[in-house]
Amino acid sequence: MDKKIHILGISGSLRNGSYNRELLVAASEMMPEGIIFEFADISQIPLYNEDDYSVAIPDSVLQLKDQIRRADGIVIATPEYNRSIPGVLKNVIDWASRPRNTQPFSGKPLAILGAGGRSGTVGAQGHLKQIAAALGMQILLEPEVAIQRAWEKFDGDGKLVDENTRQLIKDQMAAFNVFILSASEKEIMPGVPV
Amino acid sequence: MDKKIHILGISGSLRNGSYNRELLVAASEMMPEGIIFEFADISQIPLYNEDDYSVAIPDSVLQLKDQIRRADGIVIATPEYNRSIPGVLKNVIDWASRPRNTQPFSGKPLAILGAGGRSGTVGAQGHLKQIAAALGMQILLEPEVAIQRAWEKFDGDGKLVDENTRQLIKDQMAAFNVFILSASEKEIMPGVPV
Repeated sequence: MDKKIHILGISGSLRNGSYNRELLVAASEMMPEGIIFEFADISQIPLYNEDDYSVAIPDSVLQLKDQIRRADGIVIATPEYNRSIPGVLKNVIDWASRPRNTQPFSGKPLAILGAGGRSGTVGAQGHLKQIAAALGMQILLEPEVAIQRAWEKFDGDGKLVDENTRQLIKDQMAAFNVFILSASEKEIMPGVPV
Repeated sequence: MDKKIHILGISGSLRNGSYNRELLVAASEMMPEGIIFEFADISQIPLYNEDDYSVAIPDSVLQLKDQIRRADGIVIATPEYNRSIPGVLKNVIDWASRPRNTQPFSGKPLAILGAGGRSGTVGAQGHLKQIAAALGMQILLEPEVAIQRAWEKFDGDGKLVDENTRQLIKDQMAAFNVFILSASEKEIMPGVPV
């Protein structure tokens, strides 16, 4: 791989200044050299309705699908709602995974981060791993970034300041870089149905 | 329980004439005598954003929460998208489960139906059971209604006509009736945090 590595970051929360969006910011700041980190904007993606899908796929969805297709790896930061991922995040995945035979997640490396309360989002991450596996993604399993008691790790401006947490994310991104380079050497065919 | 039993049906698909909506119609037609079956309208519930939630809960959400609170049992019919429930359905649950300390799902009996392809929605139903358990719902586990190759079970007008499937749903609703009556005899406190 002689071109630059492109990473696409997706936050599962629409809240301004959400902890999980800030995890992505921290990840983007601590990427190994030479990696281009792009943030997805999911705020304009509507609720999925098959009737709408049959008429026209919204531009916001087409743009996201194109970003996924161009990315060498996807980083998703997710909160946990009711021991699963937010409906908002699942809705984005539902849109982008259609039509099935050209869905752009297939074969893509995925790293997952999450900031939450006592569980540290491990329930949500478990569901997300199952969903990602169903889409044929290649999932980085370690190190796991599941931040407990997130509110203690951020400063008044919402910036992630906890040093141990920052180091963990830096380690995960370094591992993800190696994972992507390794994945690109395998015979994967992005975009092929699974 | 000397009053009539109220059941609230929620479809996880927004599509007009969706198979899962039709499963609810079939369930409503085959309920034991004296049960009132109400259909929830989730089409107006927006994407969850904590910033919006902090300002005002939408009327569509307040209405749904009130319907859930008044119901003696909830019936959810869900399609399966990417081995989980639709983002649209999860989004509705995310809204209705806030604030946590007065969320209306706690203690409510739940029956699940699903119509899909080869898997019959068992992946989606598994995730939904975990989400419902996290909300403190009482889940009817048998009989399972997971309809494979749904398109073969409906007629040209979208009505569920397969006799075996109709009987299965009838059996499930009879079991759900008994389950609700049994649950109401236990010391459950709907609306109490779990």
